[in-house]
Amino acid sequence: MPKISKRGTLMPNSPIRKLVPLAEEAIRRGKNVLRLNIGQPDIPTSDKAIAAIRNLDAKVLEYSHSAGMESLRRKLVEYYKRHNINVNYEDILITTGGSEAITITLLTCLNANDEILVPEPFYANYYSFATSTDVNVVAITSHIEDGFILPPISEFEKKITEKTRGIIICNPNNPTGHVYSRKELEQIRDLVLKYDLFLLSDEVYREFVYDDEEFISIMQLEGMDQHAILIDSLSKRYSATGLRTGALITKNKYLRDTALKFCQARLSPPYVGQIAGEAAIDSSKEYMNGVFDEYLARRNYIVYALNQIPGVFCTKPKGAFYIMAKLPVDDAEKFAMWMLSDFEYKGNTIMLAPGAGFYTEGGLGKQEVRIAYVINQDKLKIAMECLAEGLKNYPGRLPEKEMVIMNNHVEK
Amino acid sequence: MPKISKRGTLMPNSPIRKLVPLAEEAIRRGKNVLRLNIGQPDIPTSDKAIAAIRNLDAKVLEYSHSAGMESLRRKLVEYYKRHNINVNYEDILITTGGSEAITITLLTCLNANDEILVPEPFYANYYSFATSTDVNVVAITSHIEDGFILPPISEFEKKITEKTRGIIICNPNNPTGHVYSRKELEQIRDLVLKYDLFLLSDEVYREFVYDDEEFISIMQLEGMDQHAILIDSLSKRYSATGLRTGALITKNKYLRDTALKFCQARLSPPYVGQIAGEAAIDSSKEYMNGVFDEYLARRNYIVYALNQIPGVFCTKPKGAFYIMAKLPVDDAEKFAMWMLSDFEYKGNTIMLAPGAGFYTEGGLGKQEVRIAYVINQDKLKIAMECLAEGLKNYPGRLPEKEMVIMNNHVEK
Repeated sequence: MPKISKRGTLMPNSPIRKLVPLAEEAIRRGKNVLRLNIGQPDIPTSDKAIAAIRNLDAKVLEYSHSAGMESLRRKLVEYYKRHNINVNYEDILITTGGSEAITITLLTCLNANDEILVPEPFYANYYSFATSTDVNVVAITSHIEDGFILPPISEFEKKITEKTRGIIICNPNNPTGHVYSRKELEQIRDLVLKYDLFLLSDEVYREFVYDDEEFISIMQLEGMDQHAILIDSLSKRYSATGLRTGALITKNKYLRDTALKFCQARLSPPYVGQIAGEAAIDSSKEYMNGVFDEYLARRNYIVYALNQIPGVFCTKPKGAFYIMAKLPVDDAEKFAMWMLSDFEYKGNTIMLAPGAGFYTEGGLGKQEVRIAYVINQDKLKIAMECLAEGLKNYPGRLPEKEMVIMNNHVEK
Repeated sequence: MPKISKRGTLMPNSPIRKLVPLAEEAIRRGKNVLRLNIGQPDIPTSDKAIAAIRNLDAKVLEYSHSAGMESLRRKLVEYYKRHNINVNYEDILITTGGSEAITITLLTCLNANDEILVPEPFYANYYSFATSTDVNVVAITSHIEDGFILPPISEFEKKITEKTRGIIICNPNNPTGHVYSRKELEQIRDLVLKYDLFLLSDEVYREFVYDDEEFISIMQLEGMDQHAILIDSLSKRYSATGLRTGALITKNKYLRDTALKFCQARLSPPYVGQIAGEAAIDSSKEYMNGVFDEYLARRNYIVYALNQIPGVFCTKPKGAFYIMAKLPVDDAEKFAMWMLSDFEYKGNTIMLAPGAGFYTEGGLGKQEVRIAYVINQDKLKIAMECLAEGLKNYPGRLPEKEMVIMNNHVEK
């Protein structure tokens, strides 16, 4: 039998999806599994998107332009204008989800064995995209105790080598919920300009910023036209992850022309996803506000509930729909597996994403989990009860003494 | 400004799409451009697919399983069974078009700098997928004068090195229309087993095989379970290229498990494309026969018409909806450009795909063009008139004497 490639072997299993077989087994045994592991919102897709699909008026579902439909690109320009982001439609390439936008950007900007800096914990698939493009991820660790603020810029600078070609940030952040401050972004900007790097900013959670925190896009920073690549997706803001409609946006024409060659190779993004995406941009204020209010209420509840559970630590995320929590357990992955295989509370259990999968360094995040608050408040309440009960009964729970030490550097 | 990657620079422009700006300019100047350059059928999409989209019954357009919806995978099993291809649903990974299936296969089976053998002329994007995965394409040339039959297997063997990891074939072939005989496939099979290679077979034109030619899938060859990867797409057979629904199919479990990790990274294939694709598999016999009869009539007409034009040479393709034709011109790309920029006949002109883009070796295919017969017969008639008139008037037309030499090794 011929050998599989090294990169195939190196490719990680998704930490978000790796517990799926255990969950399937739990369901077979009659448990209700509340899924907090994956960023798949339960919120209805924008009715504008659904209506556009149901009213589809086309005889031939054909390839679109490789850069995407011009009407969608022009519609996005209006959308960005409302968010004080000034781009032209030529700056926008439509991609098959944000995932493809990142892969194409890595292919366009980095050679095999080049390095990209990423503050960790980070969205686990960045590591997969890098592996599949033979790019090396160099992580700069941020800490749950600090609320995951940007590590000192000197930490980035220490890790810059001749191979460093760019930085990826996610703002608002998946998995931490951190929203980058203007000061943080300007520090990154200065570093990018000093070392002539590319800066990819994944801003797919733009709509979900709480507590009157200011959201700043990298497209709003001065002097970044040749360096900045905005990664976007319609998946999260219109609750339509299955559309697979994203975008790669940059004012760097040569970068764009090169990226377009990768787009041409795969012919075009999905037709219906573009039609529905364009319609979704006209989603009503009521819909958008409703989604926002729902996530805000869930965020508030989950922070409150987590802080009620002895030994659990989290800070209040300012954006997105995720929260990282530190649990009083020996190993959060073992705990997450145990919750599926050995535990139930009134017929329920929960599925968590083990934190270690969002870090590159072995050992980091071992007590952390990522929780996606993508189930309704009634279910969230049951989920938090499950978590509290599970932690009481889990054999690998930390002894009281260690918990006290852990909680000593906590500012709830 | 930071530098673009080497692979980005090496990435070719699509030969199929590179004349688009000239075509756009021609249209602006009022010409009617008949597009023979791209495999975008004009035939209506299967009504089953359209109906499934219009009847969409979902509140949340969510991620599907990374391997694709189980119901679609099971439906495909039935479809293949009707074509005497026996696979299980677990053997099938749904991809975002056949394009993604090829890219994921290359990533899974080949390391950077490994080599893949491909009979040329070949679908130009194979070269792009290889470039984007740092794989080297090694071409074995087939010839228009031979009707593009498989070159002697000794030609393949000569090019096998320590880096050779696989072979790609396209059957029925894009761009040549060649349908591989059982003997040819068994020769390839024996070579694959002898050198322990992977064999990718792109069979997206399976439905379009003419003149009672027998179509044989690599999945029907004995002893290939660990070696064979079937690449498929619903795009062409249901005239729905915009769905972006394809498949990677193999009985090699380790290969599949590895490929699934690449699928997990991009989360899922498009939701609507899968729903519509599943419905399309139930397309009526009348629809499928209508599509077949239409392509057959076009194939017959175009072979007839091309052979009426002095100095033009082609053989009769047995499958797909393309034909390669050799033209009595100095350079087919210059001719194709001239047709768009300098020529018109009764307000019309044609857009051709220059043949050289389907070969790797400089100089090969310089007098050839690929014609996709994806416009109706009335339009094809005008297109062939344009071609005849254009060839009469093109300044780079070969002198009579050279044409005679060229046509001497022609068996029309």
